[in-house]
Amino acid sequence: MTAPGHEPDALDLGLPAPVPDPDLPVEVRIHEVGPRDGLQNESSLVPVEVKAEFIARLAAAGLRTVEATSFVHPKWVPQLADAEDLVPRLAGLPARHPGLRLPVLVPNERGLDRALVHGVGDIAVFASATETFARRNLNRSADEAMAMFEPVVRRATGAGLRVRGYLSMCFGDPWEGPVPPEQVIGFGVRLLEMGCEELSLGDTIGVATPGQVGALLEGFARAGVPAGRLAVHFHDTYGQALSNTLAALRAGITTVDASAGGLGGCPYAKSATGNLATEDLVWMLHGLGIRTGVDLRALVGASAWMADRLGRPSPSRTVQALAGGRA
Amino acid sequence: MTAPGHEPDALDLGLPAPVPDPDLPVEVRIHEVGPRDGLQNESSLVPVEVKAEFIARLAAAGLRTVEATSFVHPKWVPQLADAEDLVPRLAGLPARHPGLRLPVLVPNERGLDRALVHGVGDIAVFASATETFARRNLNRSADEAMAMFEPVVRRATGAGLRVRGYLSMCFGDPWEGPVPPEQVIGFGVRLLEMGCEELSLGDTIGVATPGQVGALLEGFARAGVPAGRLAVHFHDTYGQALSNTLAALRAGITTVDASAGGLGGCPYAKSATGNLATEDLVWMLHGLGIRTGVDLRALVGASAWMADRLGRPSPSRTVQALAGGRA
Repeated sequence: MTAPGHEPDALDLGLPAPVPDPDLPVEVRIHEVGPRDGLQNESSLVPVEVKAEFIARLAAAGLRTVEATSFVHPKWVPQLADAEDLVPRLAGLPARHPGLRLPVLVPNERGLDRALVHGVGDIAVFASATETFARRNLNRSADEAMAMFEPVVRRATGAGLRVRGYLSMCFGDPWEGPVPPEQVIGFGVRLLEMGCEELSLGDTIGVATPGQVGALLEGFARAGVPAGRLAVHFHDTYGQALSNTLAALRAGITTVDASAGGLGGCPYAKSATGNLATEDLVWMLHGLGIRTGVDLRALVGASAWMADRLGRPSPSRTVQALAGGRA
Repeated sequence: MTAPGHEPDALDLGLPAPVPDPDLPVEVRIHEVGPRDGLQNESSLVPVEVKAEFIARLAAAGLRTVEATSFVHPKWVPQLADAEDLVPRLAGLPARHPGLRLPVLVPNERGLDRALVHGVGDIAVFASATETFARRNLNRSADEAMAMFEPVVRRATGAGLRVRGYLSMCFGDPWEGPVPPEQVIGFGVRLLEMGCEELSLGDTIGVATPGQVGALLEGFARAGVPAGRLAVHFHDTYGQALSNTLAALRAGITTVDASAGGLGGCPYAKSATGNLATEDLVWMLHGLGIRTGVDLRALVGASAWMADRLGRPSPSRTVQALAGGRA
């Protein structure tokens, strides 16, 4: 109904007014995946100094876990072929930002060897909850993939590293359809028993809805897995990421994966596999009075800066609202 | 991690797997606002036959409440200046779709006169929960606006019409900041006591978060207003619309406003005031096993068709995922 020229400008409002919900946690740790999960699908190579600067800006915005890159074979993810060059550039960050963790994905033992050479303190492995995705993405059965991760996790924890396990396709698989919770719990428990400190449950194709999220997390609780060892990783393919996150918080989850600026998928491609945007997540969390340690304005600035580098507007609604989309 | 060429294609999965949540309603009525609230901000005029066809497609997709247009002065909303031409074109729809309601917004008594001439059965009035927005949008104080609506609602109900009251800026106002719940409840109760059958609580600038939603709805319950007389109307400016809807469902709300294809705001403008996309809402509701009567594929088809007419991709993530964005 607003007449032309009278359009409200939400910029005047500042940050959301905090109204806590007593059933939700008071603090959430955001596991920022933008530099790794977000950038890996970018077709044009991002210069290593831009990546380093992006990570520095994310750390300066208050993020305390920023997944930096992957020691994957360059043939598979050309965008991350500069991992060896990037990691040393980040060496000074933890001293400036106490508590900062910069995990690196390692796909196998060769990746772990590279991580160890570079003195990385946190790694992540990437498993699949479904057979078809394991075969297509890891080129082996889900069981064989688990067997492949065992020595990686054992050697890493033996060397004092912290290991996060990603489990993908936890809700739906494009070839198998809905994924039975017991199957997800089975693989998830194996990763935890292997020595993973944390398990990130991924909705890789973004099909999950809040009831499914609650049911899976309840299943993990019944299997004896405390919510504190779980994280959730939602994609916004069908616009469900934030409401699924709300359902996860209600089930006691306190670690949430997100990607600055919603990096990780073109919003106009058919297979729009964008990650949950960190800014949209922070807006909701701060609105709920949940502490994150993040300065939202600084974070929006970092994502708008990156959007300018990529020459494309951020798909994050909050970045669009607060920084005018950019690029 | 997906290697190039192995991108999952969510189209294969079909609709979301329903996993109900026992704390949520089993059925939700969607109040579709795309043809009115969605199109009114389009700068290029949409031909009346396109609007009629759009509404027919929405009805055919199973939507049973479709707000068709507004009898506002053409000077204020040029896009809806064809209301007199549009309404008669819709006359045959209710016979084809039993139970279909096609409300029309009326800003004042002159608008009501026009609605009565055309035999409209459902109207809506549009009030403000804040002083500044009343002055800017309605050109009078919030109290004066209420006084203006009184004869509209009285005459309409006297003539057997059903009246919906919209209350805008229920959570935040760009000039006044956070809006006190008691202020919203005060104006809301006046609209209901005036004779409005239903009250739609609007987050006009999209700043609300789930705790705020729960608190406001709790306040209405304490004031004796049953949840069945309330609807929620969220905007996705900060990506919060669907999680706010989830919070509203948890508070017992069973009527949700949404706009097909997310019409109602340019996703790349600073003041991105997009409405919640009906498709993203339906994905969540069907995933929760909540009945809507909507055929999601048909709805996506209608929105993709409209996106082609507007020459612009739909901002709905679900339309992008299932119809490739289009246009």
